[in-house]
Amino acid sequence: MSKGVTKQSEDFSKWYTDVVRQAKLADYGPVKGTMVIRPYGYAIWENFQGILNQMFKDTGHVNAYFPMFIPEHFLKKEAEHVEGFAPEVAVVTHAGGKELEEPLIVRPTSETIIWHMYKKWISSYRDLPLLINQWANVVRWEMRTRLFLRTTEFLWQEGHTAHATAEEAEEETLRMLEVYKRFAEDYMAMPVITGQKTESEKFAGAVNTYSIEAMMRDTKALQAGTSHYLGQNFAKAFEVTFQNKDNKEELVYATSWGVSTRLVGGLIMCHGDDKGLILPPRVAPHQVVIIPIFRNDTKDLVMGKVAELVGELKAVSVRVHVDDDEKASPGFKFNEWEMCGVPMRVEIGPKDIEKGQAVVVIRHSGVKHFVALTELATFLAGQVVTVQDELFQRALDFREANTHTVENWEEFKETLETKGGFIKAFWNGSAEVEAKIKEETKATIRCIPFDRPGVIGKCVYTGDEGSQQVLFARAY
Amino acid sequence: MSKGVTKQSEDFSKWYTDVVRQAKLADYGPVKGTMVIRPYGYAIWENFQGILNQMFKDTGHVNAYFPMFIPEHFLKKEAEHVEGFAPEVAVVTHAGGKELEEPLIVRPTSETIIWHMYKKWISSYRDLPLLINQWANVVRWEMRTRLFLRTTEFLWQEGHTAHATAEEAEEETLRMLEVYKRFAEDYMAMPVITGQKTESEKFAGAVNTYSIEAMMRDTKALQAGTSHYLGQNFAKAFEVTFQNKDNKEELVYATSWGVSTRLVGGLIMCHGDDKGLILPPRVAPHQVVIIPIFRNDTKDLVMGKVAELVGELKAVSVRVHVDDDEKASPGFKFNEWEMCGVPMRVEIGPKDIEKGQAVVVIRHSGVKHFVALTELATFLAGQVVTVQDELFQRALDFREANTHTVENWEEFKETLETKGGFIKAFWNGSAEVEAKIKEETKATIRCIPFDRPGVIGKCVYTGDEGSQQVLFARAY
Repeated sequence: MSKGVTKQSEDFSKWYTDVVRQAKLADYGPVKGTMVIRPYGYAIWENFQGILNQMFKDTGHVNAYFPMFIPEHFLKKEAEHVEGFAPEVAVVTHAGGKELEEPLIVRPTSETIIWHMYKKWISSYRDLPLLINQWANVVRWEMRTRLFLRTTEFLWQEGHTAHATAEEAEEETLRMLEVYKRFAEDYMAMPVITGQKTESEKFAGAVNTYSIEAMMRDTKALQAGTSHYLGQNFAKAFEVTFQNKDNKEELVYATSWGVSTRLVGGLIMCHGDDKGLILPPRVAPHQVVIIPIFRNDTKDLVMGKVAELVGELKAVSVRVHVDDDEKASPGFKFNEWEMCGVPMRVEIGPKDIEKGQAVVVIRHSGVKHFVALTELATFLAGQVVTVQDELFQRALDFREANTHTVENWEEFKETLETKGGFIKAFWNGSAEVEAKIKEETKATIRCIPFDRPGVIGKCVYTGDEGSQQVLFARAY
Repeated sequence: MSKGVTKQSEDFSKWYTDVVRQAKLADYGPVKGTMVIRPYGYAIWENFQGILNQMFKDTGHVNAYFPMFIPEHFLKKEAEHVEGFAPEVAVVTHAGGKELEEPLIVRPTSETIIWHMYKKWISSYRDLPLLINQWANVVRWEMRTRLFLRTTEFLWQEGHTAHATAEEAEEETLRMLEVYKRFAEDYMAMPVITGQKTESEKFAGAVNTYSIEAMMRDTKALQAGTSHYLGQNFAKAFEVTFQNKDNKEELVYATSWGVSTRLVGGLIMCHGDDKGLILPPRVAPHQVVIIPIFRNDTKDLVMGKVAELVGELKAVSVRVHVDDDEKASPGFKFNEWEMCGVPMRVEIGPKDIEKGQAVVVIRHSGVKHFVALTELATFLAGQVVTVQDELFQRALDFREANTHTVENWEEFKETLETKGGFIKAFWNGSAEVEAKIKEETKATIRCIPFDRPGVIGKCVYTGDEGSQQVLFARAY
């Protein structure tokens, strides 16, 4: 851990891998493209789960669990869906020592099996809305993988809801997008832009896909969560109808929405620096690490004070960890916990105690505070809020500084090459133009943001009048 | 839901399936042997998870996540392990549109992939003990399946720990068995017998397997959790050594332990009756259901009082649900919530309010209490404890009443045929005898209980002197 990491400016991608490995967040699994989530990385994911789960329950959802194996023919029932997912599925052909009559798909997402079940559970408007979420593993056989960001197996949650009207389903789609935005911004301190995906970027089987898009510290974009309005597509494919209030049979309206362990990758790349990880306090496994400094003759004094402090911090709900490993030096520990991104470090030794104080170092700013021991717990509890706010503001400032509005194609290309970042530009709505821009620059339309100027303008590629402003970026 | 269920005495197996389906705990999935865990059943599992997770953390464990796909050759590295699991694995042969070079096993348990990783993480005694738990889905292709009890895919937790000494690993094995016993008894109100498995019943790859065994209401046994001392078997297979304090290379010692969604089946069969499910309060999604009774002109009065009560119950941490569905009659709701096993029902109407009281009905005993509204929250909070204790005592009494000590083979067969239950008898330790008893009676040795008489006696089958007492039963 003391080795340090590659500088971000030198090789951002290598920096990322170094941090993930050295902070012991994850490791490669034995099968290409798979990931082992190590305890420290998993603790972050557990914090995400706990918060999101509460947010889902607060918006009326319940959890359930559906089987991971999907009969192959299910996938084919929704034409766009199979086209999108068939190329990347893993297939079970043998089980229990025999070849199966029908191969089984390992779920890449669960719309098909869930709507197969919803057919059995829904018959009347009284059964609606059905608001179910599932925490599960899914498999998508990707060629180019990267720890957390894109792995063949990943963990996620997938919400699948059924509604009596299109309006209600559309409302739900946007409500959950808003939940994701709140989670990203209020907990991960990661500002996001919400908007609609273009036709070519939408989910296979959706009517509309919406996403939250964040900027990483290399100014590239990360799609951090999606929410889909599925219309009646899956209800049609799986023949899910209900008797409405007028006693008429009607197809059910659907949504689905998900975020995954990819968010952990987003967290790392949104806040980290050349010393390693930086974790926002609200999602950090440890908010404070205490490094006691002592020799044999001062151990009791220092550890006694530390025990007192731990008690005070727990009383104000601050998550604290004491690193009392006597085999490592304080200097080694400083580096180690900076690598691991713990938001605040407390150093406390006999001289500090004599002066009635301790040293507090803030991870992201490096600012050092000398704080009276009597004030320490209150100070740290306050810093949980302050650090969280500062990290959000820093990420927001960074995004604003790296978002550029361009008028024409030359400017587009030059900005992307020399500055990178998010590019706001007008686009004529043509999928062909979208594809050409991608081909020429590797930039994609991240979304058609909800928040955009009321004006229309000239398409950055074709010059067509009457085009709408969209957000371009190179993305993960 | 108002249909009622088959009587236990008529057909216990059908009773079980009726309850699972009608209380909406689970449903069959489209692939044979798979199960959909519906929200009410999943809420029970979530309660289990929350409690167990805390117990694991309190005993020093952390969570992590390992990939579900295991290279086929891993399984073969431990001879007994592959023999035990190979016949029931599901195999992925194709992924991403291509045939894989090496087939992948969908984990039936994760020892092999975890010990492959432990080799990378362990090098010195300083890295030990390593105390990791994982919450995951696993797949075992079983021929005869039953909802919750035996499904091809199930959810579980699997602890995998690594230690520097055999003693420490053995201690850990028994510590976790004790955690399972405490969980079963204190939370599920399900008394269990702890003991060691025989050679033929132990985990494939273990040195010793220990289990908790519970009695269901048909007097059959359910193995509800297992804890394995693996010795150095997996360390040897995966070459996991560490430098001990004397600077010598040594193989690591291991344990693994797990409980699964099978526990939900155990809960149902340990407490349920002819009216349906009975849930112990500590694991019940709703501890209290309130059924308001009103007409249009008394709705405000009643619902106002109900809202007050809900506030009071939440303040004393009682999980309460209000069934205010105006389309169903109170009588229908009584049946429905009895079917769903909610421990306490509160009925409250305008006449009750006039008298300043409410009716409380205890699910398992049918006892009716008329309780002053001012005392209601306190009364119900008290009943959470009382009902929990009563259910445990009832299950314990039932087990004791159905446990028989027999002296000879005739008595063994007759007791099993006429009374069923647990049978305590002496056994000479021969696997052949064990197999013959199983063949002739379908009874297996559930365990060699920790708590058994200090005497030895005559083998029930062969009459051999010097045999030890063990626990026989027919089992799920």
